[in-house]
Amino acid sequence: MQIAMVQDEILPAKELKPVYFDRGIYFGDGVYEVVRSYDGKIFALEEHLQRFANSLAAIEIAGVDIDRIRSRVHKAFDAAAISNAKIYFHITRGSAPRNHVGDANLKPNFFLTVTESDDDTEAKTKGIAVSTHPDWRWKRCDIKSLNLLPNVLARQDAAKKGCAEAIFVDEAGLITEGAATAFFAISGRTLQTAPLTANILHSITRKFVIKASENIGLEIIEKSLTPQQASRSDELFIASTTKDIAPVVRFDDKLIGDGKPGKYTKLLAQEFGSFTV
Amino acid sequence: MQIAMVQDEILPAKELKPVYFDRGIYFGDGVYEVVRSYDGKIFALEEHLQRFANSLAAIEIAGVDIDRIRSRVHKAFDAAAISNAKIYFHITRGSAPRNHVGDANLKPNFFLTVTESDDDTEAKTKGIAVSTHPDWRWKRCDIKSLNLLPNVLARQDAAKKGCAEAIFVDEAGLITEGAATAFFAISGRTLQTAPLTANILHSITRKFVIKASENIGLEIIEKSLTPQQASRSDELFIASTTKDIAPVVRFDDKLIGDGKPGKYTKLLAQEFGSFTV
Repeated sequence: MQIAMVQDEILPAKELKPVYFDRGIYFGDGVYEVVRSYDGKIFALEEHLQRFANSLAAIEIAGVDIDRIRSRVHKAFDAAAISNAKIYFHITRGSAPRNHVGDANLKPNFFLTVTESDDDTEAKTKGIAVSTHPDWRWKRCDIKSLNLLPNVLARQDAAKKGCAEAIFVDEAGLITEGAATAFFAISGRTLQTAPLTANILHSITRKFVIKASENIGLEIIEKSLTPQQASRSDELFIASTTKDIAPVVRFDDKLIGDGKPGKYTKLLAQEFGSFTV
Repeated sequence: MQIAMVQDEILPAKELKPVYFDRGIYFGDGVYEVVRSYDGKIFALEEHLQRFANSLAAIEIAGVDIDRIRSRVHKAFDAAAISNAKIYFHITRGSAPRNHVGDANLKPNFFLTVTESDDDTEAKTKGIAVSTHPDWRWKRCDIKSLNLLPNVLARQDAAKKGCAEAIFVDEAGLITEGAATAFFAISGRTLQTAPLTANILHSITRKFVIKASENIGLEIIEKSLTPQQASRSDELFIASTTKDIAPVVRFDDKLIGDGKPGKYTKLLAQEFGSFTV
């Protein structure tokens, strides 16, 4: 016999739906993706599905058919009929009584939501403030896993400081990335961002930012910055699927440039926009 | 409008129970404890509740009444009527649409299970094998959080090698602890284990192991070991709430001592047993 308790209610565990015993909640034993649509068209879905497959492989969740995931995403997106949508989906190793070692025969759990994209007009036109936070995350941030507590704690710390994003600084004193975004600096005609390692997410938006930078004639350097170097840059911005490019106008206590979105950042956002049409 | 999809079923998000939107599953944004009972008596509950309160404070989940948690634990334990039980409980920041920053007004979710303790007679009499794994975890392992994917991956790796536990080795080449246990070595009449830092869990069983060691006249050194030092020890064992003391007789490819549980380990297990009566 196994007893469960949800808030104050005691009941036999077998009366609870499997979601209560999801390894996603016990261990964060799952991986996720977020894609978005622009005017009725999902952007870069294949890249996201490829990364999702890589994440699943990295944590050895087997037997997930990516074609089926693609068709689920399309089906849900069509059903939602939201033209500018944010589509979140995750897969966990399955539901079972708590045990670190997952049974190889578990059936993975799939979960997806479609929501209206956030209105980020103000962030884009006025820019945002960011604050630094020690990078306390695990060593495989290339895996897009459900273990996001350090990201939550950093974002909450940033929010208390009136900042929209936390920028992680590792033990070597170098910026890795934002809590849920990639981080970029522009000085002169050079764009700089951290190189892709196991310590950062292999951001899909980053790829498009680099392409956009090439298109507008910026030189690209893949090398980590210190917070001091970042705060002295001409321009800063963050990039992610849900925000695409958001100018950063304050970095900790320092204003960047004249405190307004920089000219190359604006050009890049425009160029990026041309990819999503 | 918000659409959700569970496996192949599309439905309005509002038709789903809050558990589907638990921040525990989105982010691992919660903390947990496991206590066990011996012959109808819960062991060291106050110590576990104190650590639970510390974990909640560390991730800033406010408004949890520990007295209420204590009474829930007792209520569920009584209802289950299992004399040798393992009681697991967690609290997450609550359920809400996915957003890194948790709304301060969220109501925390409490979940608990009571199950029969595992029969570990064989592990205890014959001892277990362990294998080393890089410590990929985050930097706040003193917080007993739901972010346990690195622990799962390490345990799964160990299981493939026929081992019952993975022993984490950090970047400095030092053993921190097991994936879900504390780790101890005995050489001569000296017990050695890693010191308590932010990188390891402040194990409650460890406290009782140290007390037992004092009682049987062992000297205690709190200093990290290298895998090489560990494999050359006279005796090794792991300790946790659910296993109390389990002798380690193989460490990676090396047999420890004569490949049987060591004499001091057996004495310690006996002494530990006297605390649980």
